[in-house]
Amino acid sequence: MDTAEYKKIDGGITSVKGFKAAGIHCGIKKVKLDLALIYSSEPCAAAGVFTKNVVRAAPIIVSQEYLEGGSARAVVVNSGVANACTGEKGMEDARKMAKAAGEALHVDPREVVVASTGVIGTALPMDQLLKGINDAADQLSVEGDILAAEAIMTTDTFPKVSAIEAKVGGSPVVFGGMAKGSGMIHPNMATMLGFITTDAAITPSLLKKALQKAVDRSFNMITVDGDTSTNDMVVILANGTAENTLIDTDGEDFHKFEKALEYICVDLAKMIVKDGEGATKFAEVVVKGAPSAVDARTIAMSVASSNLVKTAIFGEDANWGRILAAAGYSGVDFDPDKVDVFLEGSPGIEQVAVKGSALDFSEEKASEILREEQIKILIDLNQGEGKGRAWTCDLTYDYVKINASYRS
Amino acid sequence: MDTAEYKKIDGGITSVKGFKAAGIHCGIKKVKLDLALIYSSEPCAAAGVFTKNVVRAAPIIVSQEYLEGGSARAVVVNSGVANACTGEKGMEDARKMAKAAGEALHVDPREVVVASTGVIGTALPMDQLLKGINDAADQLSVEGDILAAEAIMTTDTFPKVSAIEAKVGGSPVVFGGMAKGSGMIHPNMATMLGFITTDAAITPSLLKKALQKAVDRSFNMITVDGDTSTNDMVVILANGTAENTLIDTDGEDFHKFEKALEYICVDLAKMIVKDGEGATKFAEVVVKGAPSAVDARTIAMSVASSNLVKTAIFGEDANWGRILAAAGYSGVDFDPDKVDVFLEGSPGIEQVAVKGSALDFSEEKASEILREEQIKILIDLNQGEGKGRAWTCDLTYDYVKINASYRS
Repeated sequence: MDTAEYKKIDGGITSVKGFKAAGIHCGIKKVKLDLALIYSSEPCAAAGVFTKNVVRAAPIIVSQEYLEGGSARAVVVNSGVANACTGEKGMEDARKMAKAAGEALHVDPREVVVASTGVIGTALPMDQLLKGINDAADQLSVEGDILAAEAIMTTDTFPKVSAIEAKVGGSPVVFGGMAKGSGMIHPNMATMLGFITTDAAITPSLLKKALQKAVDRSFNMITVDGDTSTNDMVVILANGTAENTLIDTDGEDFHKFEKALEYICVDLAKMIVKDGEGATKFAEVVVKGAPSAVDARTIAMSVASSNLVKTAIFGEDANWGRILAAAGYSGVDFDPDKVDVFLEGSPGIEQVAVKGSALDFSEEKASEILREEQIKILIDLNQGEGKGRAWTCDLTYDYVKINASYRS
Repeated sequence: MDTAEYKKIDGGITSVKGFKAAGIHCGIKKVKLDLALIYSSEPCAAAGVFTKNVVRAAPIIVSQEYLEGGSARAVVVNSGVANACTGEKGMEDARKMAKAAGEALHVDPREVVVASTGVIGTALPMDQLLKGINDAADQLSVEGDILAAEAIMTTDTFPKVSAIEAKVGGSPVVFGGMAKGSGMIHPNMATMLGFITTDAAITPSLLKKALQKAVDRSFNMITVDGDTSTNDMVVILANGTAENTLIDTDGEDFHKFEKALEYICVDLAKMIVKDGEGATKFAEVVVKGAPSAVDARTIAMSVASSNLVKTAIFGEDANWGRILAAAGYSGVDFDPDKVDVFLEGSPGIEQVAVKGSALDFSEEKASEILREEQIKILIDLNQGEGKGRAWTCDLTYDYVKINASYRS
């Protein structure tokens, strides 16, 4: 993808005109911000992608139902308590959150997306939360994007926001986004929340199609530790105020829209990986020459998810055998005797395996590359045209430390 | 399975009459033992189960080919170098190992099973190895079982041997075994070697069927870190010298044989988990009430493989939410609202979740259980008759330390 096509803008979800946001402390957590609200002054086409875990938190079930209509006006998110494994009471609480936000914002409660993240199995403190929703509505502003991004954090160490300008149908279109996630990240969007806004005019069905495709190539291609969660969702709201012709067919404009959406989703997904619990290094795994793009992504994720590859990255060890072995157990059928492996970083590129076998490579050059904070592992299967990318971080002592104590 | 049916015997593969073994240092490693030889004075029915990784080491390909005939007389195993990702030269070397052992033992080289474990992508030092095979043949003895088990170790901290006596068809039958593995252990038998001997009389095809079933319920149900390897195999040799009637049909005797084989495989598999890299705790995950036994095993492995569950065990945290979430992303479709979760150990049993939701359980009692070195996680899906077990260890600082530096 040609990044020159996109202009980075400061800020997040409120970079798109017509959107306001707030992030406040309502009392679920002791001190930190724990409640975010997003509001659109215009009606929006809306779509969501949700966790595939069969254990689904109440807000997932409620938001999926509400988004069936393909429209939304607001998003309310709390952190600290996941409202997962909370039975019928949890379902009522999720609906009450939407109702309270709807009343405070004078919109239909079914136009309110609900999300939660935090501890599983605990009931939401509804008194604080409902009061908080009113307070947040009072504090909505175009400057609220960073506070909102902070309010959805759990073990995150920094708020994750992104905004870009793209050309779609000859007109400038803006995308804004925020995301949350640092541990438990794996495909199907574990403990991962993403909210995207745009002023593009697009039908709800094409919006959903574009979001699914973008999520499959971004949030579903990151991994911190292989676990997937009960609460994850990515939601997009499109208010249609840009000058672009309504995107209502799967043509060139749709393709441009989808690529721009993928770009901002990848940007946010990479931030989540960089904030991986205890992570010190960031790695991109690029697979090319695969029988298909799906095969390439499957292999890339298998390598990116391997604990042994991740600890080797931490140890700055050019362990191409682990990379090849992880590709080999991905489930994709391929000929290992054609595979080349390279390590790449700012010091350059070094081939470390050729045709599935050892190569007398420069350990010195490889070490130089692996000492960098950002590393690329390139796997060329040499048996097709399929390409795919995944992103991962190293597995460190601190990962164990953080997760041995955090009750999530 | 009623353990009272089986009598534990001291020793390993040479507990079965007619088998001799040796474990020596031939020079692949600097000091430690690195070459094992097993020899049967009688012809044996033989079968093997091999890694499903598409990247398959040369000894895997050779042994699979040689075992197609269903018979074997010897096994030669080296540690230190895996002979994986070594191209055509690696294939030649694996065949040379079998040929040398065949000549030294005066048996057909195609009756010799070959196995290797260690660093990927490095060629075997054939001069030392071929000389070593002759030396090992000279040192074969019925006391060689422990040395042989030591000679196949890599990052293992102790040799793994087991032997039992069982009744099959009214006659006493003996099983002996040794195994290797400590890190990288996951289903499909990563960096895992297992060798079983028995005096039972059984046809090669039923031997293979029993081995596959036993491996599926033992070695394929252990996990240390989710990675699978290029070199893994479990091989069984049955010399038929017991008094039992030849097992040639899938009847009661076959069932008894299979259960006894499963018992010794589980015993060896548990030793591998207990030797998990950096592990301090051992956990059995029991799933019952599942739609099917396969579903139960899939869920058990998903929970046992979860880094978050494994770090929670290290942290002695009664984190039932992570257990439920890991069950939820296993790929098995089930109703989470029926699931009960229990923790069990020598201090007793404590229910920590009921019908997929929180329960006001005793944190004190749960902590007491989790402080033990051996823990059982019991998940009752309450939606069928399927049962399954998996075994795992905790994920610790030392795991990261060991794997950040070891080039495997």
